[in-house]
Amino acid sequence: MITLYDLNTLRPDPYRTYSPHAWKVHCVLRFKSLPYQTFWLEYPSIESKAKELGAPPTSTWSDGSRYTIPFIHDSTTNKVISDSLLIVEYLDNAYPDTITLITPGTEALQSVFADAIWTVYMKDIDPVIGRTLPNKFFTEANAEYYRKWAPKDPNEEMTEESIKDSWKRFESRFGELAETIGDEPFVMGNQVSFSDCALIGWLMLLRFALWDDDKGKQRWNEIMEWHGGRWKRLIDTYEELRDTRI
Amino acid sequence: MITLYDLNTLRPDPYRTYSPHAWKVHCVLRFKSLPYQTFWLEYPSIESKAKELGAPPTSTWSDGSRYTIPFIHDSTTNKVISDSLLIVEYLDNAYPDTITLITPGTEALQSVFADAIWTVYMKDIDPVIGRTLPNKFFTEANAEYYRKWAPKDPNEEMTEESIKDSWKRFESRFGELAETIGDEPFVMGNQVSFSDCALIGWLMLLRFALWDDDKGKQRWNEIMEWHGGRWKRLIDTYEELRDTRI
Repeated sequence: MITLYDLNTLRPDPYRTYSPHAWKVHCVLRFKSLPYQTFWLEYPSIESKAKELGAPPTSTWSDGSRYTIPFIHDSTTNKVISDSLLIVEYLDNAYPDTITLITPGTEALQSVFADAIWTVYMKDIDPVIGRTLPNKFFTEANAEYYRKWAPKDPNEEMTEESIKDSWKRFESRFGELAETIGDEPFVMGNQVSFSDCALIGWLMLLRFALWDDDKGKQRWNEIMEWHGGRWKRLIDTYEELRDTRI
Repeated sequence: MITLYDLNTLRPDPYRTYSPHAWKVHCVLRFKSLPYQTFWLEYPSIESKAKELGAPPTSTWSDGSRYTIPFIHDSTTNKVISDSLLIVEYLDNAYPDTITLITPGTEALQSVFADAIWTVYMKDIDPVIGRTLPNKFFTEANAEYYRKWAPKDPNEEMTEESIKDSWKRFESRFGELAETIGDEPFVMGNQVSFSDCALIGWLMLLRFALWDDDKGKQRWNEIMEWHGGRWKRLIDTYEELRDTRI
């Protein structure tokens, strides 16, 4: 049995987490139709749980190693893997009878693509989303940690006008991405890949941040209409798959 | 015979152009071992030549269509194609006996990768390189056009310190890219692709800007040593191929 260690919130399943990286793994597990369970963590307990399992840190900060969500433990093979891309590479290798999400040779391309979703195509919306978090669905421990880790910059006060502009620029950049992907359903044409799950993951972060009140829900529904409804079709394709969570 | 329409400078071949997009096509033609000739244009004559041949514009500016380098004319098929990615897709299809540079299904991934080279991994060096252009190898017409099109921002004056920092950040980001690509020679492992030619193209722009004086040459040689010499190996792989230019 695969256990996915994910970030807890007060929102009910299936939209409980807001970690785009954990979402990627949910998505991949569902596309692979692999049964799994979720173990919910809060920021202050990520490092100790990772160390207990032997999940390696995913990066280095000036004050030491950094342990992050997601990591998985696979009791069938007794392997523990951190980092969404490495988790998916592991699953492709360990379960060769399931759909391959990272076709050999495309690792670097998909890694750069997955990173570019936020840093290039969604960058304009980053400050807009950032100011709405932590929201009422954060647990107390996560909210406290989040505020320390991502303190609001008082110089970054946004006006109604600048927020509107940010949404416009985001829509336009996402339109460029839609054009680059073209008419076929997935980033790699008719073949689903890790890159689609990365897109779904970042969109799900957006959904988490927006799905707070009527205005946010309306905004989400608008995004789902953008670019001929292509993002809605992508989300729908994922949601129509059987949920393999135990 | 394929004719590649490229941007003229005063630098002798094979380093005559500084257009990263034209470089991509030189690279692809050489990897495909397809004979071709070059037709050198200056900025003010790009649009008229493109229109004369029927090469479509590559983007829209507020004041109308924008015609850019490179475009090709293939007299064998009598086709005219603009935009480096579309040119390479055309060559893959028209010359199926040559190496495929864009494996079907990877178009969007390679397009995003090629764009991310400059906008993500080289972005820190953009203002440093920008201030050295136009240099003494620009023709008069190109220099005049370039100054109008990319006027220097007086607020962007850089200090020795900020230039040093930019180089450090560029080296660090390129290090991340090197790590993402891994130990194999090409972005897609052992298989060369459009993405490698995009890397070579942007590096060649850097070479053009640096290869002015001893300090710049030294800087270029340092880059060639970075990250275990992996960028030098990439450039060498390209340069060791037979030049198929007529």
